[in-house]
Amino acid sequence: MSSVDKVLSARWVIPVDPSNSVLEEHSIAINKNRIHAVMPTKAARELFDTAEFIDLPNHAVIPGFVNAHTHAAMSLLRGVAEDLPLETWLQNYIWPLEQKWVSEDFVRAGTRLAFAEMIQSGTTCMNDMYFFPNVVGELAAKTGLRASLGMIVLEFPTIWASSADDYLQKGLEVHREFSSTNLVSTMFAPHAPYTVADAMFEKIASAAAEHSLRIHMHVHETRDEIENSLKMHGVRPIERLNQLGIVTENLIAVHATQLEENEIALFAEAKSSVAHCPKSNLKLSSGTCPAAQLLKNGVNVAIGTDSAASNNSLNMLEEMRFATLLAKNTPAGAANIPVHQALRMATINGARCLGLDADIGSLEAGKLADITALDLSELACLPVYDPVAQLVHAASRNQVTDVWVDGKRLLNNRKLTTIDETECADTAVRWGKKLRKSL
Amino acid sequence: MSSVDKVLSARWVIPVDPSNSVLEEHSIAINKNRIHAVMPTKAARELFDTAEFIDLPNHAVIPGFVNAHTHAAMSLLRGVAEDLPLETWLQNYIWPLEQKWVSEDFVRAGTRLAFAEMIQSGTTCMNDMYFFPNVVGELAAKTGLRASLGMIVLEFPTIWASSADDYLQKGLEVHREFSSTNLVSTMFAPHAPYTVADAMFEKIASAAAEHSLRIHMHVHETRDEIENSLKMHGVRPIERLNQLGIVTENLIAVHATQLEENEIALFAEAKSSVAHCPKSNLKLSSGTCPAAQLLKNGVNVAIGTDSAASNNSLNMLEEMRFATLLAKNTPAGAANIPVHQALRMATINGARCLGLDADIGSLEAGKLADITALDLSELACLPVYDPVAQLVHAASRNQVTDVWVDGKRLLNNRKLTTIDETECADTAVRWGKKLRKSL
Repeated sequence: MSSVDKVLSARWVIPVDPSNSVLEEHSIAINKNRIHAVMPTKAARELFDTAEFIDLPNHAVIPGFVNAHTHAAMSLLRGVAEDLPLETWLQNYIWPLEQKWVSEDFVRAGTRLAFAEMIQSGTTCMNDMYFFPNVVGELAAKTGLRASLGMIVLEFPTIWASSADDYLQKGLEVHREFSSTNLVSTMFAPHAPYTVADAMFEKIASAAAEHSLRIHMHVHETRDEIENSLKMHGVRPIERLNQLGIVTENLIAVHATQLEENEIALFAEAKSSVAHCPKSNLKLSSGTCPAAQLLKNGVNVAIGTDSAASNNSLNMLEEMRFATLLAKNTPAGAANIPVHQALRMATINGARCLGLDADIGSLEAGKLADITALDLSELACLPVYDPVAQLVHAASRNQVTDVWVDGKRLLNNRKLTTIDETECADTAVRWGKKLRKSL
Repeated sequence: MSSVDKVLSARWVIPVDPSNSVLEEHSIAINKNRIHAVMPTKAARELFDTAEFIDLPNHAVIPGFVNAHTHAAMSLLRGVAEDLPLETWLQNYIWPLEQKWVSEDFVRAGTRLAFAEMIQSGTTCMNDMYFFPNVVGELAAKTGLRASLGMIVLEFPTIWASSADDYLQKGLEVHREFSSTNLVSTMFAPHAPYTVADAMFEKIASAAAEHSLRIHMHVHETRDEIENSLKMHGVRPIERLNQLGIVTENLIAVHATQLEENEIALFAEAKSSVAHCPKSNLKLSSGTCPAAQLLKNGVNVAIGTDSAASNNSLNMLEEMRFATLLAKNTPAGAANIPVHQALRMATINGARCLGLDADIGSLEAGKLADITALDLSELACLPVYDPVAQLVHAASRNQVTDVWVDGKRLLNNRKLTTIDETECADTAVRWGKKLRKSL
């Protein structure tokens, strides 16, 4: 017998492999932080000796979700302003609140709340864009969640930085701080075409090429963004970004609700990724990302929740549900984004957009052990004909029972192991009371 | 002090009254099966003497959800056929499966599973359309859920009836059987314009007028339905139904994804109701009900889940979420169906479409005690600025802790009191194994 650190044996293992397998009564052997093998439970029992044997008899085990776009700290603003379009929502509510309240403490409290919600709903990796990314990185290391930190850049001053160059420099400091860590990676995060000037985009493009770093940015979120760009620059934002050297395989274009055919072709040719945030786009009446069309054209489309302020959840199960159902909302669209493709978008496509698909996004021998288990025995998920259909269309976040990141169990039978739930809740309530006074 | 049967004291009571109140630290006094009073908890403690005092310190208490359209028994077909348009889904999968398997036992097992899921997710009343409505009625009485039974009518034979007249007669027998019960009501349920002939619609129209009974029917579900009607009858289905006397205040038009302005005006003038089923319409690529426009024109729009075969849930929280977000998916639509209106649609508007709004759909003295409590202290719902925003946009069905129907507690701290959960699950799994063999 061969010795391994732990073996998870589940009713279903859904590895998210190229053939969309659903493996019944399979086990995952884990050594240190990596998957050692995936095989039938019967064989695994004969082959492996382990001190930690975890039985998941009613469960589907999947790769942990990769949330391809979020602003974690904004959880503290969950539900603060409802039923408003993006521009009003940002300019009259979110930005004034942020200007008044954002601090290292705010980011720590909000991000911790977000991490707790993410782990509880099966997310193992998130791509963040916010102020004080150093604080987010420290929390990720402490909490055990895998994180990609956005080196945010804006042309206007905030508490985090005073000028575009200052943002860039502070971002690169964060990049250096975390460059040798396993859980935390970094990428450039110019906020949007309308908040960053050409000169800075050129600097970012060459720095991204030089350091092989990705670029995470809101792109074509609303019709207004396009119209304003046409007025100011004479071209649509994607064309401007392309001229500035930003549209490459390093780009993660977030939202992309307004795309013409040549822009879809450009993304396909450049191998850029799109982060589709269906709930946020609906809530802010921003438009709809043509996700099915992008996928058919070979573009890598991942799924993000955006922030809890415009969602109001960080729940990738629900986000998959909206992605598949919204894609069908077109004549003869019922076959668009079938359930297995929705699950791919929320896992391996997310890993691919972060450049981490060699290590995460599927359950295969040699990959890091980022794993989510959900109990499918709730009445609301019975009977089970295809566990993937139940995950995408019926499961709730509370069915997530266990989560491992980098081989470490962050959720153990629905209990957080690295975050004090009571303290996290108390802190959130306290911040809510403070913020409410500004409303 | 005045003596009452029980007092529920909650962090928030959301009565769904005309001014969209959110009452903090309020109590509901219940006597027998009716609400005796709603008042501040402080006053209630001084005024009422009760043997049963229920403390809901982190909870929002709302009127129980009214599911305005479902086929409860089809829960056994949850996830059986995915990513297909309505016609293929019905003709190649659902109807053949139903023809082979539907029986009294099937209806009992499927409906019980559905009732369990409904109660667990806060629904207290449902409007059903299926075969063996007598079995559904018996189960409702036994389980304690409020139910409106559809006296289903089709022109083709099934195990339930052999001809349209036979359906009608069997339906009227069910109507008589349950006419003196409190929990169970009945209405006509001609399946759809394309499955029922003119002569039968005329009979139903006059019987509905005579007995003051409502008519529950799929109307304008897909583009094909309209085109086929134009070919066969020379008019769109709603015009044909109007000519046959069906479009009155008794009509609950389900789906209504294809509406022209004159049809919206007709529904408004006739005081017909619409049951909006956003998830099912998306999943089957049927089109989108113009719910916001109907509401603006004064039409009563309620929310239904449709069956678990095309959803795959019976979760009204999620259905509200899709209703509000889908309504915003139009330029300048961010203010469409604000959160309080979504909650109204899922409660009082549902009651109104069933003709039960004098008795249910809001929390007011004198109304029946159909009440749902949700714990909003989960991290994924913090902080709380507006509990209605959290319900509509962030809460999961597992946050429903307690449900009362007609004053009786059907869910007690997340435990079903009238359904054996293990037996219900075992039966569902057994049926799933049988049905899987036909796939």
